[in-house]
Amino acid sequence: MAVDQRFYELLGPVAVAELAELTGAELLGDGTVAVNGLGAAGHASAGELCYYDGVHAPAAGDISETAAACFLKHEYADALPAGVVALVTALPRHAHSVAARAILRQRTWRDAQGVAAKTNVHETAYVAPSAVIGAGAAIGDRTIIGPNAVIGPGVQIGRDCEIGANVSIRCALIGNNVNIYAGARIGESGFGVMMGPEGAEDAPQYGRVILQDHVTVGANSCIDRGAFDDTIIGERTKIDNLCQIAHNVVAGRNVLMASFAGVSGSVTLGDGVMLGGRVGIADHVKIGDGAQIAASSGVFREVAPGQTWGGTPARPIRQWMREIAWLQKQVMGDRKGK
Amino acid sequence: MAVDQRFYELLGPVAVAELAELTGAELLGDGTVAVNGLGAAGHASAGELCYYDGVHAPAAGDISETAAACFLKHEYADALPAGVVALVTALPRHAHSVAARAILRQRTWRDAQGVAAKTNVHETAYVAPSAVIGAGAAIGDRTIIGPNAVIGPGVQIGRDCEIGANVSIRCALIGNNVNIYAGARIGESGFGVMMGPEGAEDAPQYGRVILQDHVTVGANSCIDRGAFDDTIIGERTKIDNLCQIAHNVVAGRNVLMASFAGVSGSVTLGDGVMLGGRVGIADHVKIGDGAQIAASSGVFREVAPGQTWGGTPARPIRQWMREIAWLQKQVMGDRKGK
Amino acid sequence: MAVDQRFYELLGPVAVAELAELTGAELLGDGTVAVNGLGAAGHASAGELCYYDGVHAPAAGDISETAAACFLKHEYADALPAGVVALVTALPRHAHSVAARAILRQRTWRDAQGVAAKTNVHETAYVAPSAVIGAGAAIGDRTIIGPNAVIGPGVQIGRDCEIGANVSIRCALIGNNVNIYAGARIGESGFGVMMGPEGAEDAPQYGRVILQDHVTVGANSCIDRGAFDDTIIGERTKIDNLCQIAHNVVAGRNVLMASFAGVSGSVTLGDGVMLGGRVGIADHVKIGDGAQIAASSGVFREVAPGQTWGGTPARPIRQWMREIAWLQKQVMGDRKGK
Repeated sequence: MAVDQRFYELLGPVAVAELAELTGAELLGDGTVAVNGLGAAGHASAGELCYYDGVHAPAAGDISETAAACFLKHEYADALPAGVVALVTALPRHAHSVAARAILRQRTWRDAQGVAAKTNVHETAYVAPSAVIGAGAAIGDRTIIGPNAVIGPGVQIGRDCEIGANVSIRCALIGNNVNIYAGARIGESGFGVMMGPEGAEDAPQYGRVILQDHVTVGANSCIDRGAFDDTIIGERTKIDNLCQIAHNVVAGRNVLMASFAGVSGSVTLGDGVMLGGRVGIADHVKIGDGAQIAASSGVFREVAPGQTWGGTPARPIRQWMREIAWLQKQVMGDRKGK
Repeated sequence: MAVDQRFYELLGPVAVAELAELTGAELLGDGTVAVNGLGAAGHASAGELCYYDGVHAPAAGDISETAAACFLKHEYADALPAGVVALVTALPRHAHSVAARAILRQRTWRDAQGVAAKTNVHETAYVAPSAVIGAGAAIGDRTIIGPNAVIGPGVQIGRDCEIGANVSIRCALIGNNVNIYAGARIGESGFGVMMGPEGAEDAPQYGRVILQDHVTVGANSCIDRGAFDDTIIGERTKIDNLCQIAHNVVAGRNVLMASFAGVSGSVTLGDGVMLGGRVGIADHVKIGDGAQIAASSGVFREVAPGQTWGGTPARPIRQWMREIAWLQKQVMGDRKGK
Repeated sequence: MAVDQRFYELLGPVAVAELAELTGAELLGDGTVAVNGLGAAGHASAGELCYYDGVHAPAAGDISETAAACFLKHEYADALPAGVVALVTALPRHAHSVAARAILRQRTWRDAQGVAAKTNVHETAYVAPSAVIGAGAAIGDRTIIGPNAVIGPGVQIGRDCEIGANVSIRCALIGNNVNIYAGARIGESGFGVMMGPEGAEDAPQYGRVILQDHVTVGANSCIDRGAFDDTIIGERTKIDNLCQIAHNVVAGRNVLMASFAGVSGSVTLGDGVMLGGRVGIADHVKIGDGAQIAASSGVFREVAPGQTWGGTPARPIRQWMREIAWLQKQVMGDRKGK
């Protein structure tokens, strides 16, 4: 998808040949093709630059036919869809991140204008004097922004929201009747570590956070913005204190998460899912509508709708409980037998 | 108990008939009875409004005889103590929350007066210029309030305390010699999710946090205020970073909690309890004086005084260790036998 | 090691006799010896005061021969190296902390000078107007300090860093190209609880945090300063949101920690270690170079280089998985047999 220019400044279109030179990649195809955005490999749109970092040759659909160009390894160059320019390199993800910085620039706190920039604050809203509102941010009717909160450039906040003290929000669109408790962090960069030529590096993240109406986010919880797409929290989903929602998570409506819930990257949570305290979910896992996960569980694979799972690794809760009881019985019997 | 008017403004008294009309509840009894406060069902005082949300008929003591009125389901109306007006509804907790907003209003950051409101700051205290002090807040002798800290309206802080940078405190009474490290959140709303007619909603929380003398709260830890009563942390209890203490928890003296301790709603911790890192305790559980819980454990039932438990679900630590050793032995033996 | 006077003010040299009087300890040796610093027992330098709190007689090397004086229990006084003055007391650690306060004073927010103190901010750096910069802090070329961030007195931050909104940093030296996301807490006091005559007390912490070049710290993560030495995070180590790094941890290069990683006091992490989400590591444990710990694991003992461990308590991952599979098979077989 196209990046949101409220959060990222488009620096150009840039010719693919220029990106090849910038990154040292080998250009296979038309160097005059113009790039004016970024996309994930599977669904990059026209004009967008992507990368393929898989360990197998890309299958049909893995790389979008509409992408402008794609960084990938030498051995996979032949598998690119026709019309997508190949940029061949040993470190596709890293090269892409270098190129990305030539195409887009995240608007930073340097772009924020302090309290002077309150041009889009509704007259019935209340912004504490010590809160900072970035350039282009908008605050809806009757919304309260607490002391020392920081609202990044371009952030849109709806009506009747309450944003607590010391909260920070960036790269995010916030609906109506949203409550964000003190110290929550919305829209920070996801944990997208990649290996570069000199070691670990942060992959820049160009997505957003969408909080739909009536979402509540607990104190000191964190919701990271998407890598290229969005992190989305559905209507009336309620998140307790000290939870972590990683990049590209999509949570449905009326999801409940108790404290210390940790939802890894690209997880999908169906409507009405309930996560007990300290539940962790591994990346890319799907939790079906209405499923419940017992407190302290670690979920490593898909949970079907309506099921209740527990344990680490999580399994159907009755199975987990039977295992616990059986083990206890064996060990006690063993002791008695001695 | 009566709400603390330093944190909640009393808007009423309001006649029960008016609350019935406001919530669509059916009134059974004297509609002229005046309500001027809220209480938990089991111990609501004279003039207080409560709700009963149980799944069985209320037993003796479940609903206070002194309550003014009680929201409850049709099938339990007959079980109300004489003299308590019944407000019959399908969603008692939700109706109560709607009524509550007509009786009480939490003082918000809008009521805070910024640094100008430092009328109750002792002359020997130090308040960083960028800290925000709410209306009616009081700061004792020699106490230090760090930069960008936010002290809510009506908060009372004793002598010789150190409140770190970017801390926020609301609806709380803080003793003497209390240390609160940077980014801790004291007095935010507990995670009181209820189902309303349109889905999940936050139940408003009308209690306080009490931190007794010599309590220490680690960086980015959270202590939620009580629902109707108080969350209480006893003298010299020491809480590490990134811990979560939910609403209505009562912790004794000299309790030690390592990082990521998660103490759910209405848990009671006796004097001298020690929680290792990442210990979770399920709601309403009691941990006896001097009990110790091993790191990474999930406690789902009562632990007697002086015991040491471990594992998930937690059990006496020797039993847990025997089970681990036995299982390991069986599996190794099984492999050798093949 | 000598304390860093950018963070701690040296109040004097103080004669040992004076410390004995202050703490009520019995002096065995030359009371005129001058103390002008603090050290850990095992490596206190000339002029430094230490304590020995072990439950066995100190072995060779447990107490440094170069220390000026040492608080310890009566029964161990004979085991002190010659030349180290003995300060005999029933509560060595507590007495040491009382003495420490007569020798050193941490520079507090009261010493910070607000935005006026930006004398050491490079002209190409950007400090948000609402950020607070302590006296003597230095900010390097092109570094960005976000809104409402708080940089403590004496903190040194290198070039090309990005410090997020509402971050706080104290007692720390930060390299180049370091990213610290919103709400992270760097340099707060570690969880050094000791028993004093009236119950639990915080042991004062006199060390620092060192973040080497290209380190990234996630949102709302905490890194505590060392007790007497330093907490050190090696080059290119990447830390996700809501992680906890305790005092005296030493992490190598290119270490990756996913959310909720909890690294206890004095843990050593080798180069390239990978910790999955919600991994806890008990204090003083060593994790060898390149070792990997599966998500949700609790590690209680040393992990050799290159190994992959999982479970709680953690064990080699294949063993853990075999145990899980075996248990599941037994319980299912048991059910079928009935």
